[in-house]
Amino acid sequence: MKEKLVKDITSRDVDFARWYTDVCRKAELVNYSNVKGSMIIEPLGYAIWENMQKVLDKMFKETGHENVQFPMFIPESLLNVEKEHIEGFAPEVAWVTYGGNEKLEERMCVRPTSEVLFCDYYKNVIKTYRDLPKLYNQWCTIVRWEKTTRPFLRSREILWQEGHTMHRTSEEAKEETLRMFNIYKKFQEEYLALPVITGKKTEKEKFAGAEVTYTIEAMMYDGYALQNGTSHYFGDHFAKAFDIKFQDEDNTLKTPFQTSWGVSTRMIGGLIMTHSDDHGLVLPPKIAPYKVIIIPIGDVSKKLEDLKSKLNDKGITFKSDESKKSPGFKFAEAEVKGYPIRIELGKRDLENNKVTLVRRDTLEKITILYDDIIIEIEKLLETIQNDMFNRAKKRRDSMIYEANSYEELLEIAKNKKGFIKINWCGNSACEDKIKEDTAFKSRCLIENEKVTGCCPVCGKKATTRIYIGKQY
Amino acid sequence: MKEKLVKDITSRDVDFARWYTDVCRKAELVNYSNVKGSMIIEPLGYAIWENMQKVLDKMFKETGHENVQFPMFIPESLLNVEKEHIEGFAPEVAWVTYGGNEKLEERMCVRPTSEVLFCDYYKNVIKTYRDLPKLYNQWCTIVRWEKTTRPFLRSREILWQEGHTMHRTSEEAKEETLRMFNIYKKFQEEYLALPVITGKKTEKEKFAGAEVTYTIEAMMYDGYALQNGTSHYFGDHFAKAFDIKFQDEDNTLKTPFQTSWGVSTRMIGGLIMTHSDDHGLVLPPKIAPYKVIIIPIGDVSKKLEDLKSKLNDKGITFKSDESKKSPGFKFAEAEVKGYPIRIELGKRDLENNKVTLVRRDTLEKITILYDDIIIEIEKLLETIQNDMFNRAKKRRDSMIYEANSYEELLEIAKNKKGFIKINWCGNSACEDKIKEDTAFKSRCLIENEKVTGCCPVCGKKATTRIYIGKQY
Repeated sequence: MKEKLVKDITSRDVDFARWYTDVCRKAELVNYSNVKGSMIIEPLGYAIWENMQKVLDKMFKETGHENVQFPMFIPESLLNVEKEHIEGFAPEVAWVTYGGNEKLEERMCVRPTSEVLFCDYYKNVIKTYRDLPKLYNQWCTIVRWEKTTRPFLRSREILWQEGHTMHRTSEEAKEETLRMFNIYKKFQEEYLALPVITGKKTEKEKFAGAEVTYTIEAMMYDGYALQNGTSHYFGDHFAKAFDIKFQDEDNTLKTPFQTSWGVSTRMIGGLIMTHSDDHGLVLPPKIAPYKVIIIPIGDVSKKLEDLKSKLNDKGITFKSDESKKSPGFKFAEAEVKGYPIRIELGKRDLENNKVTLVRRDTLEKITILYDDIIIEIEKLLETIQNDMFNRAKKRRDSMIYEANSYEELLEIAKNKKGFIKINWCGNSACEDKIKEDTAFKSRCLIENEKVTGCCPVCGKKATTRIYIGKQY
Repeated sequence: MKEKLVKDITSRDVDFARWYTDVCRKAELVNYSNVKGSMIIEPLGYAIWENMQKVLDKMFKETGHENVQFPMFIPESLLNVEKEHIEGFAPEVAWVTYGGNEKLEERMCVRPTSEVLFCDYYKNVIKTYRDLPKLYNQWCTIVRWEKTTRPFLRSREILWQEGHTMHRTSEEAKEETLRMFNIYKKFQEEYLALPVITGKKTEKEKFAGAEVTYTIEAMMYDGYALQNGTSHYFGDHFAKAFDIKFQDEDNTLKTPFQTSWGVSTRMIGGLIMTHSDDHGLVLPPKIAPYKVIIIPIGDVSKKLEDLKSKLNDKGITFKSDESKKSPGFKFAEAEVKGYPIRIELGKRDLENNKVTLVRRDTLEKITILYDDIIIEIEKLLETIQNDMFNRAKKRRDSMIYEANSYEELLEIAKNKKGFIKINWCGNSACEDKIKEDTAFKSRCLIENEKVTGCCPVCGKKATTRIYIGKQY
């Protein structure tokens, strides 16, 4: 039986794309629906999202943000207010044209993002400097009418959070942009065990309407990049387009400065493609809905109750598989579903006051004294969390290359998986050329690295260094 | 200044509808948006909803339910599968007809409720009795294209939760319907301090496609009913329409039985129209995002820090108004926003080791020893919670009438505000007649009351007793 479950998952080295959807489906994270382009997030997938929400929401609130809920519809005229923005989003929105049997006077799109809705509101409520800053966030679903979709990575409906803030000065707004960017980085490294690369997007790749976009880029097992969160500084771009003004302390009318920032269920895709393996899902303990699965072997009901109450006392979430399936089948199922630790609670082991723990990340078996079980589990959860991050980082680092000439760049792009660090002149024509030749796009600018030499594409003096890579 | 804020709120006895929107706006629960029919839920309004979600979600999970997330779009053909259902909802859905620049082959509506989406999924995943029960819930936004809208009560976009469950037997499904109905009742009575009337809906008033609908009916200050939650038993209606079958333990193919149940942000409207007054919002302590507001008067910074740390230690949420506004203005603002207890932390009081607490529900001032502050606050929060329920119940009970003849019914309907208890023959023609003559609709059937006498409309033998009332 174990064989069968595992065989159902394509090997990730054979066909990564199929492996990914196999894991999503076998672990029961998502299911397909008859609504084209939309997916169903099943209980385990949604519980992971709830855990992400819980941690992030606390971080947002601790930094003074408040949650709100804005309309999901945007009238066409409102979407049209900011020119770059509409150009970026119009081709991929869903249009509502009828309400019941009546044709709408003005069609509305389902929000692809909510900058214009927040601006339209801020215009009414921001009157003086005392009304600033506005630090709002909302958890909601957005819609982008994608042609090809993949679970969590690209979907017509995306669950996310979007923060939209307004500030008295550009300095304050820039600080906010970086504050939230750093929260995303911290969250993804400490909770999701994702070693992320972070920096500014190039002019070409930034968000439609933003002045600066900071991006969190995670490298997947196959070397592709996943853009896993962005934080935008808008300057007074939108504020001017929407004519938002406030009376400052010196009695003059000024325009406020704006940010927005968001992460989505895409992070679940990032988790999977970084940590999971041919046996199924592997979850970092800090984000796993259930830290532990108990599999009783033989009649161990007394110890089972004891163990459950010990785990409950310590607030360690767990599942217990007391079904009639064979232990082998249960083991495989526990592996597919990614519980960080499996406890094999066996009659014979217990007679010697022993119990076996199995780490999901390494599948290593550890036999310990039953009396030490809680302390051992707590230690092991921490170890797994750290090891997962370090393993992912080591792999990621081993897949970052440097190219000093265009030839070298082409060579690496052709033969290697991962990111390439290159010099760049700052001209987007050179980005285009690279993309055309290799399908590698700029990931982000590299800060804190000395720039010497030339752009490998045009040969002009480099002004910065950037990461390039293929992307999801 | 205090005068001004209060004057901005219309008296509820003068114009209840205006009073309601004044409270919603002045307390900054919601704001209007330029998206017709949709509202913006501001931080205080959303924090109340988050508290409601937290308590209910825990109750759902404790009774074995799991959260999921289903698509927000329903293709027209899918909505058409169950006849009564489509007839009930088609006139009020929003239709998406374009994705980007392309006309859709089949239009889709934004979900007005998700029975058909869950059925379409259950059809694929329920194969044997081992797959049952399915106990799923989702928190999401639904859309109903209403013509006239009012904050929280009637809106094109509604935030709610919808539970959708499938069971092996009709008994199990009926139990589930009642279990969730009782959770709603408990939640609204214990947390929202709403004394609710509960029972089955009549044939005419039940949910489109349901076999039985249980309803939670709250009576508002103006005597109108607010339907504040429903729990439906579907029998095997939808399951048959969707051809959902499972192999039972005896190896025969059977059809499962279904329930659904939901409550929404409408409950916030119910809270307001039951408890609030001419000074603004009044919130039951158990659901108030901040239990306490501190208003320092004079230089009391040392005691202020001490008080904050004491409240934090006890997990009592609070706000502290340290702005430069006058105390009078702050008091009025605290009243508008409904903090259950206001702490007036005054320099002179503190010199005598005293501090003043003000109950929001009664505006009563209580002077206590500062040293007892935490214990007094805890006691007072409990007292306020109980008093609010009892006061609402007493008022509600005083507004329930009995009519034994049609004349009496017309007389009460004309001159009194509230619900009327009447005999009923069970014929919907009699319901229609009452509605035509008085605008009173049946609220629910009354269980546990002996039925003697005749239907006041047609004079035939009564088979049951019902509540009737005007409704939101």
